[in-house]
Amino acid sequence: MATLLRKQKSENIDNTGFGTNSNAEGGRLVNPDGSTNLKKRGLPVWERVSIFHYCLRMKRSHFFIAILLFYTTINIFFALIYFFIGVEHLYGIDLTHTVFEKVMAAFFFSSQTLTTVGYGHVSPSGMLTNIVASTESLLGILSFAVVTGLIYGRFSRPKAYLMFSENMLVAPYKDSKALMVRMATYKYNHLTDAEAQLTVALHLNEGGKMVTRFYPLALEISKINTLSLSWTLVHNITQDSPLYKHSVDELQEAKMEVIVYVKAFDDNFSSVVQQRTSYTYQQLVYGAKFLPMFERSPNGDYTLVELDRINAHEAANLP
Amino acid sequence: MATLLRKQKSENIDNTGFGTNSNAEGGRLVNPDGSTNLKKRGLPVWERVSIFHYCLRMKRSHFFIAILLFYTTINIFFALIYFFIGVEHLYGIDLTHTVFEKVMAAFFFSSQTLTTVGYGHVSPSGMLTNIVASTESLLGILSFAVVTGLIYGRFSRPKAYLMFSENMLVAPYKDSKALMVRMATYKYNHLTDAEAQLTVALHLNEGGKMVTRFYPLALEISKINTLSLSWTLVHNITQDSPLYKHSVDELQEAKMEVIVYVKAFDDNFSSVVQQRTSYTYQQLVYGAKFLPMFERSPNGDYTLVELDRINAHEAANLP
Amino acid sequence: MATLLRKQKSENIDNTGFGTNSNAEGGRLVNPDGSTNLKKRGLPVWERVSIFHYCLRMKRSHFFIAILLFYTTINIFFALIYFFIGVEHLYGIDLTHTVFEKVMAAFFFSSQTLTTVGYGHVSPSGMLTNIVASTESLLGILSFAVVTGLIYGRFSRPKAYLMFSENMLVAPYKDSKALMVRMATYKYNHLTDAEAQLTVALHLNEGGKMVTRFYPLALEISKINTLSLSWTLVHNITQDSPLYKHSVDELQEAKMEVIVYVKAFDDNFSSVVQQRTSYTYQQLVYGAKFLPMFERSPNGDYTLVELDRINAHEAANLP
Amino acid sequence: MATLLRKQKSENIDNTGFGTNSNAEGGRLVNPDGSTNLKKRGLPVWERVSIFHYCLRMKRSHFFIAILLFYTTINIFFALIYFFIGVEHLYGIDLTHTVFEKVMAAFFFSSQTLTTVGYGHVSPSGMLTNIVASTESLLGILSFAVVTGLIYGRFSRPKAYLMFSENMLVAPYKDSKALMVRMATYKYNHLTDAEAQLTVALHLNEGGKMVTRFYPLALEISKINTLSLSWTLVHNITQDSPLYKHSVDELQEAKMEVIVYVKAFDDNFSSVVQQRTSYTYQQLVYGAKFLPMFERSPNGDYTLVELDRINAHEAANLP
Repeated sequence: MATLLRKQKSENIDNTGFGTNSNAEGGRLVNPDGSTNLKKRGLPVWERVSIFHYCLRMKRSHFFIAILLFYTTINIFFALIYFFIGVEHLYGIDLTHTVFEKVMAAFFFSSQTLTTVGYGHVSPSGMLTNIVASTESLLGILSFAVVTGLIYGRFSRPKAYLMFSENMLVAPYKDSKALMVRMATYKYNHLTDAEAQLTVALHLNEGGKMVTRFYPLALEISKINTLSLSWTLVHNITQDSPLYKHSVDELQEAKMEVIVYVKAFDDNFSSVVQQRTSYTYQQLVYGAKFLPMFERSPNGDYTLVELDRINAHEAANLP
Repeated sequence: MATLLRKQKSENIDNTGFGTNSNAEGGRLVNPDGSTNLKKRGLPVWERVSIFHYCLRMKRSHFFIAILLFYTTINIFFALIYFFIGVEHLYGIDLTHTVFEKVMAAFFFSSQTLTTVGYGHVSPSGMLTNIVASTESLLGILSFAVVTGLIYGRFSRPKAYLMFSENMLVAPYKDSKALMVRMATYKYNHLTDAEAQLTVALHLNEGGKMVTRFYPLALEISKINTLSLSWTLVHNITQDSPLYKHSVDELQEAKMEVIVYVKAFDDNFSSVVQQRTSYTYQQLVYGAKFLPMFERSPNGDYTLVELDRINAHEAANLP
Repeated sequence: MATLLRKQKSENIDNTGFGTNSNAEGGRLVNPDGSTNLKKRGLPVWERVSIFHYCLRMKRSHFFIAILLFYTTINIFFALIYFFIGVEHLYGIDLTHTVFEKVMAAFFFSSQTLTTVGYGHVSPSGMLTNIVASTESLLGILSFAVVTGLIYGRFSRPKAYLMFSENMLVAPYKDSKALMVRMATYKYNHLTDAEAQLTVALHLNEGGKMVTRFYPLALEISKINTLSLSWTLVHNITQDSPLYKHSVDELQEAKMEVIVYVKAFDDNFSSVVQQRTSYTYQQLVYGAKFLPMFERSPNGDYTLVELDRINAHEAANLP
Repeated sequence: MATLLRKQKSENIDNTGFGTNSNAEGGRLVNPDGSTNLKKRGLPVWERVSIFHYCLRMKRSHFFIAILLFYTTINIFFALIYFFIGVEHLYGIDLTHTVFEKVMAAFFFSSQTLTTVGYGHVSPSGMLTNIVASTESLLGILSFAVVTGLIYGRFSRPKAYLMFSENMLVAPYKDSKALMVRMATYKYNHLTDAEAQLTVALHLNEGGKMVTRFYPLALEISKINTLSLSWTLVHNITQDSPLYKHSVDELQEAKMEVIVYVKAFDDNFSSVVQQRTSYTYQQLVYGAKFLPMFERSPNGDYTLVELDRINAHEAANLP
């Protein structure tokens, strides 16, 4: 390990926002989805968590199940209130019904109030029931406002919609070798002024203490005007590269983690979007090259991008 | 072709985001509306397509037809459910009606539920019908939230609202000649800090292989403070220009494509907006100049911009 | 005039986006509200005008009157349809009414449908009336979606909320004189990283042809970190100033117009905001200085900004 | 004080946006929440205050109480109108009721109209009552649009969600000492490209006149790539520091105020966010150092951030 350290030629950087004490941080630094691998505590959960952003990031199916659950729960809650006040305060309800049927009738009345349908076949009578119904219809309107905000927020949240290759490759490149990862936009989004950064984190033993060192990995092309096809990031492993003299084994021992950061302007959102991901040493393929993932369309009129070939690669001899 | 290549004086650029293999890309690179001329496959359509952005880019008339179709379809769907449960579970429906009349009654009840009008002349009875109606009114509220989001999204989507001349001209300019295109904002929008870039793509034969080369075309003025009148982009064809020694025929043979990119800050949206377009060699007019498109108003109080003259040009002798 | 021209020391700039032909542009260049003084024609009005932005910029009172008019018009329109189909197809309407009463009943039914209140005392019967009511309730929902979008758009539209002094002053400054204008934020908004630019436009006779020349006016301080008190822009009229050797009369003859452009980051909107205004030679006060417009509060705990003193100035002798 | 002034080595800056006249400004310059410590007058309150932004910044509980109050007030207002027109114009109301019961019935009818529930058990009759009800349902829809806008605005308002240590410390640092403040994000937000600035304000006696001088405090690291753990800002008090030769007493006498400004890109909002705060001399702890606030999780899989330790520090000897 000490030898590994001495080999480092390039300057390490200390403005990554991660600490240098390898014993204070646990596991990988960045998750594949780009979030930092951490948990927070010391504040109550409602101060620590933003419900809005939580709802924005939920899977679509979970989001709709959550709405359905919320709707049912509120209706059961109000149904019970109407029931305990007495269903005789709901005009139009058949009082010869069983308890279950009465609760269900209150449930349906509640749902008609919450959604503001208000057919009126059943309607509230008496002060208390009227107050509850009036409150419920306000709650309905407010909930609907919240749901409208959440749905719009989910729709309009700027996202980069980038997919990355599963592996990072060390491929032959210009008489030498290079570290490569590949990305592509998978929606019909259109990114311009795209910029990428690669940073490698190595966990090293410095004087008996495990420290985390970060090195930028210079890219052959780090900015492109338009990102609508695929983009392969190429870090040429020259003498100046922090990876130059390391064997694969040494990189594994140092739990090499490569953090990818992409920033671009998205035309649909008219906003800057960004995406991060990270590759660990387990995802490194040594001696391989990416295969093309776009080609001319059969009729020659347009270019065809094959997204399922994002990770397509074949073995290649390194010099 | 080989001669064409040797003539290139200026450096080609490789960070356009397009590949250099002319055989991999098909047809023109950029469509007139600024999108890249490509299709994607390899992912299911629902992952590849963002419905939100699709709805945002639809023509207004199509958007409203889509809403109408959606509304009708949902109502037919629920009408059939109510019908099969049995219209006798809808209070207030005349049971002596024909089947068609019953389905229509169910349809109208459905529309009253979906829009949450709920007149109540007809209302649900029985567990099953009530559950369906309760679900439908929730669906109505959610659909409405989606529509509100889409309408706001369509409204508020930052757009540059730029129109471009149909042709690019080679016009006399300062004892020599220049490539010119003209643009104007066609709404009462107000762009500031506007920047433009011209890039030419030439398909060349290099050692028997067709490659696509990209060259930036330097502009006389590439940034202006305010874009509220018209703006003519001028690329002076000097010795440094990649177009300098080419005849019109050579440019046609190389399928010359000029990509225009404009970026500006829009005051209405308080956002950066951008627009791209592209001109192919068929749109090149050799030996012509643009005619003025704005003039002092008759009473002398303001400036009058004539948008239908954006492409107005007349023949002009080149030196 | 020819003498005026020769006096110009500093370089004029040609990237303002305005033309240089004084005969093509009419009146002042920029209106006091910052818009460019122009009209557009040559496209149909619905392509030239963005209704959304028009509604966003309307005065609040006009906006609400427009909504009221829209609501009334739509209801009259549908009331007439229901009336011509026959009010006997509206359950619950008293058929012994007069024609006016019947139209009014149809009007109120229409409003209950459009707002989706749907009391149900009156409800549609018959195929045709039901179809119209079903369409109207959809229209109601869509209109409401539009109004929600407009209201949110009006609320959330980033604006700088800057007020400017009515006059520009030539005031004594550092043994010499300076051109000064003053601005302040008038809401509790908080601008950071504020930048200002002054540009003077002079209409000059060059070789018998009237041309418009633009010169930047250098500012003593052109960027400030925080704009929450007032900010006085100071252009020191040194030898390098394009105004240096001109008398007030010459400036008037050249129809001097000073365009002010301010750009800042607003914390409330988390967005860049900007505002422009323009001063013509009629607004120039020669030999005056601004009086302070903020002071320590009586109890010494905070700073008190007096917005009605934004233009407060007194005569001052120039060197 | 005069001695204090002479000691200043570094240049003071005059583009902070604050004035230099210590007698014109009152109390601290910046409040702990980052707002400027000022009040405005001279314009009517409705021009000075943006209701939208006021509602956006209200505490959540206050916001919901405000909505409830608004709802109740509007209903009482319309209940009184219906009552004075005459409740006999409300079909379905029991006319044998007492005045209070009639007003309450009108209140509940009003709430059913405002929320557009419209059960229809009670419905308007007569021209006047119908007009009022029609107006109220429009008002209901507009209010709801406003509330939807406010709720979405509250949700989507970009905020940095940063918490700061309560104290600024002077801690031992590299054989010398440094001024330190610490911050952390307390939600699961993810800030990138974070930048910080420290500015110190000192109130000094210059030639008998109290002036406020501002000095930037250079930071060891002023930009970090990712801010997801904690970040300690470190101003090394070297010879170049404006704080170098001052005793704690002198700094107190000068009412030292340190303004912290942080700017970053937030991934959730895809927007630049910023936060300011300020420390006064009372919050200075001389001779102390921060204790770590994150550690490896027990199972070693992630990093654990302890937000309640943000201000944790212990005494430390200064050189």
